[in-house]
Amino acid sequence: MRLDFSVAVHSLLYLDENRPRKIASRELATSLQLNAVMIRNILSVLHKQGYIEGFVGKNGGYQLIKDLAEINVGELYDLTIPPTISYARFITGDSKGTQTTDETDISVNISQTLTDLFTLADEDYRKFYHQFTMTDLKRDLHAHGFFRQLINPK
Amino acid sequence: MRLDFSVAVHSLLYLDENRPRKIASRELATSLQLNAVMIRNILSVLHKQGYIEGFVGKNGGYQLIKDLAEINVGELYDLTIPPTISYARFITGDSKGTQTTDETDISVNISQTLTDLFTLADEDYRKFYHQFTMTDLKRDLHAHGFFRQLINPK
Repeated sequence: MRLDFSVAVHSLLYLDENRPRKIASRELATSLQLNAVMIRNILSVLHKQGYIEGFVGKNGGYQLIKDLAEINVGELYDLTIPPTISYARFITGDSKGTQTTDETDISVNISQTLTDLFTLADEDYRKFYHQFTMTDLKRDLHAHGFFRQLINPK
Repeated sequence: MRLDFSVAVHSLLYLDENRPRKIASRELATSLQLNAVMIRNILSVLHKQGYIEGFVGKNGGYQLIKDLAEINVGELYDLTIPPTISYARFITGDSKGTQTTDETDISVNISQTLTDLFTLADEDYRKFYHQFTMTDLKRDLHAHGFFRQLINPK
């Protein structure tokens, strides 16, 4: 779900701005306006991938390990929103080939053609995000329009 | 919904293969494996845009007016899947600015940054589809792999 990506981006930006303070998931939850459980799932993924460190106890919380410039936005996207494995619910026709009512065989063959189209489009879509690092997003956060300017320079 | 795009693509390919026969929405429904009402909604859009013609009566049905080579896949995509107006459900933070719990203002500002990111990514995504005409999809339908080859030539 695209929200997982936003949770990751928001959390990393928050940890960065608050360096070197350790941030509890409850504090992040307030900033993200989401419940802490949902955020912890994503923090766990970011932890496994070596983006952040977590400390337990009284002065516990999360800290960002990497520099924002080292964090590719596309990698975050791939991590939090894995490619769709099946496009079945977006595809028309008789992909199981159970009927032969369609003389032109479009009904049976359209599934593979549309799956290829959607898969290639998704690969292309991900390339867009891979052009940027978290530093670009941070700049836009402090000066809206930076990002639009970066993509569509006058 | 992405299914609307598939309905349009499938219908146009079916009408093309069956030229000059007039095709009833019931026959299309069998090929698409969807109910006829859903298909008629999309056919109505295609009719308004001048892709197809509809005839009522005993020998009624739909006919493709345009040549597949004249039908851009991206135009079909834009027609059936309009750009998202609001990304609210994919965005974290306090976009209404009702709270001031977040000293860094990330919570208030992240909404616009993520909206810009998603909007620009979507514009880029649509460009992918605009590279092709329905003729490309027809070729792939008859020889799977054509499309992959077109995008990623060896």
